[in-house]
Parts: sequence; C-alpha cells; structure tokens
Amino acid sequence: MFKKRDNIKEIEEGKFLSPKFDENGLIPVITCDFKTGDILMHAYMNYEALKKTIETKEAHYWSRSRKNIWRKGQVSGFLQKIKEIRIDDDQDSIWLSVDIGNGSSCHVGYRSCFYRSIPLGKIKNEKELEMEFKEKEKIFDPEKIYKDEPNPTKL
Amino acid sequence: MFKKRDNIKEIEEGKFLSPKFDENGLIPVITCDFKTGDILMHAYMNYEALKKTIETKEAHYWSRSRKNIWRKGQVSGFLQKIKEIRIDDDQDSIWLSVDIGNGSSCHVGYRSCFYRSIPLGKIKNEKELEMEFKEKEKIFDPEKIYKDEPNPTKL
Repeated sequence: MFKKRDNIKEIEEGKFLSPKFDENGLIPVITCDFKTGDILMHAYMNYEALKKTIETKEAHYWSRSRKNIWRKGQVSGFLQKIKEIRIDDDQDSIWLSVDIGNGSSCHVGYRSCFYRSIPLGKIKNEKELEMEFKEKEKIFDPEKIYKDEPNPTKL
Repeated sequence: MFKKRDNIKEIEEGKFLSPKFDENGLIPVITCDFKTGDILMHAYMNYEALKKTIETKEAHYWSRSRKNIWRKGQVSGFLQKIKEIRIDDDQDSIWLSVDIGNGSSCHVGYRSCFYRSIPLGKIKNEKELEMEFKEKEKIFDPEKIYKDEPNPTKL
C-alpha cells in the first residue's frame, strides 16, 4: 500500500502519495481530455486500479456495476493513454489527463459523458427541468460495440 | 424533487434532469475553471446544494466534514460564479464550469486543489512515491484567511 495517512500537514503539503480510499475502498476520479481540457467522465478506482493506471499508463477503473477492475476501452477499443495523473489537497480524489485520440469515452456513444447542460436561474418546474444537448452526434453506435454487455446505468 | 428516475433510456438520452444522489444523499461534483479548463476541485452536493447552485448561479456544496450547505467562498471571499453546469450520461455526477477571477479554490492556498502530479511507470517503493508540485506559489495564506476554522482535511 501507499504511504500511511498519519499526518494532515504531510498529506496536504508533503510530496508522498497517500490516497484516501472511502469506506468501499474507492477514490473518485475525474478524467479529462489532455488536448481540449474537456471533462470526459467521472469514475472510481480502488487501490489495484490506481496502481495499474500508474504502472501501465492506461486508465483502469473499478466498475461498481460489474464489481471488477475495468481496463477502459477493453471492449470498445477506446483506450485512455495517461498523460498525467494529479491528486488533490487532501488526497481523496484523482484527476487523469488522457489521450483518447478521436475516440469516445461515453458508453452512450458521445465523446464525453457530459453532453447535457442544465439551465441556470429560477427553477419553475423541477420535474421537467429541460437540459440542452451540447454534443449532437455520437462517435459510435453503442448497440454495435457493446452488443450483449449489460448497461452500466442504473436507476 | 427533480424528475423521478424510472427509465434508463430517459436518464441517458432524455432532456430532463433526474440526478442520482447516493446512499448519503450526495452527488459528486467536478469544478473547473471556465477560462483555462483546469480542474479546481472535487466536492459533493446534496439536493439542496444543487438547487441553490442552479438558482443563485453561485456554487454551493455539501460539506461532509461540517455537515452543512457550504456556499463556496463565504469565508475566503473566493466565490465561484457559475458559467455552466453539465451532468453525465447516467446523471450521477456534475461538472461545473466556474469563474473565480484571479482567486483560489483550494483551502491550502493554491489556485487548484490538484497541485501535485503522480509520477508514471513502474513503482519502486509505494510508501515513498514522490510527487511533483505543479503549482509553486500560493494565492493566499490560509492561516490568515481561515484563522480558527477547522481544517476540512481528515486522516
């Protein structure tokens, strides 16, 4: 395991990696496109996924729906090559900058998972708060790529 | 509350906001600088914080350490003005683009919370994995600004 978390000053201002995994053994991860800076996805890693990501320079996550290590792009072919990994002040979240070429990172088929924008200002009807699609075209057809894979989206 | 999550296709491809709050009533939030695209912080919102953020156009979070709604910048003065809010495919994470002017978003004093970079490649000694500081100068002195406020970083 990484350095033990025994000193708050060292966690914040020190140079050694001491990640905090939550009660489920996970740390949240923000993944962005190193070229555009766009956020591509938000996911989780466990200890093993973080270690594999650092060592292989390919993004690995923990799939909460499948409950296994998930080498991103294993099925779709859209691997994420790591350009940089950062960690935050209290070392409980990770920021990955990745190269996905002209690929996609969203299982629905868009380039980014964040393809919808929430309108700002006074909410009139919460139950019908209409968002705007910021990506209009899918990069791939998920029904062709994922075929019989279960959908990770849960109610 | 927002639209009920009763249909996966609608959650993924529909236009209505149906956020998923976890078992603690929280949704993770990625906050980036709208000008540079840099990730500033990773935090959480509950239902009320999300609603306040949409309506006031100022970032509000749920403080897990203080257990209250946290209007970002209330103490430091570094408010986050919302430029855009997006939600991801399965609507269980939020991306905020914010304007913080020349301010800071990190309680340690740096502009971004993500000021340290993790080295890539084969790990020799996990307990001393040495990171690189990517921000060298603090924007403010946290001891002056926060005075007697408790440190949110936990072991």
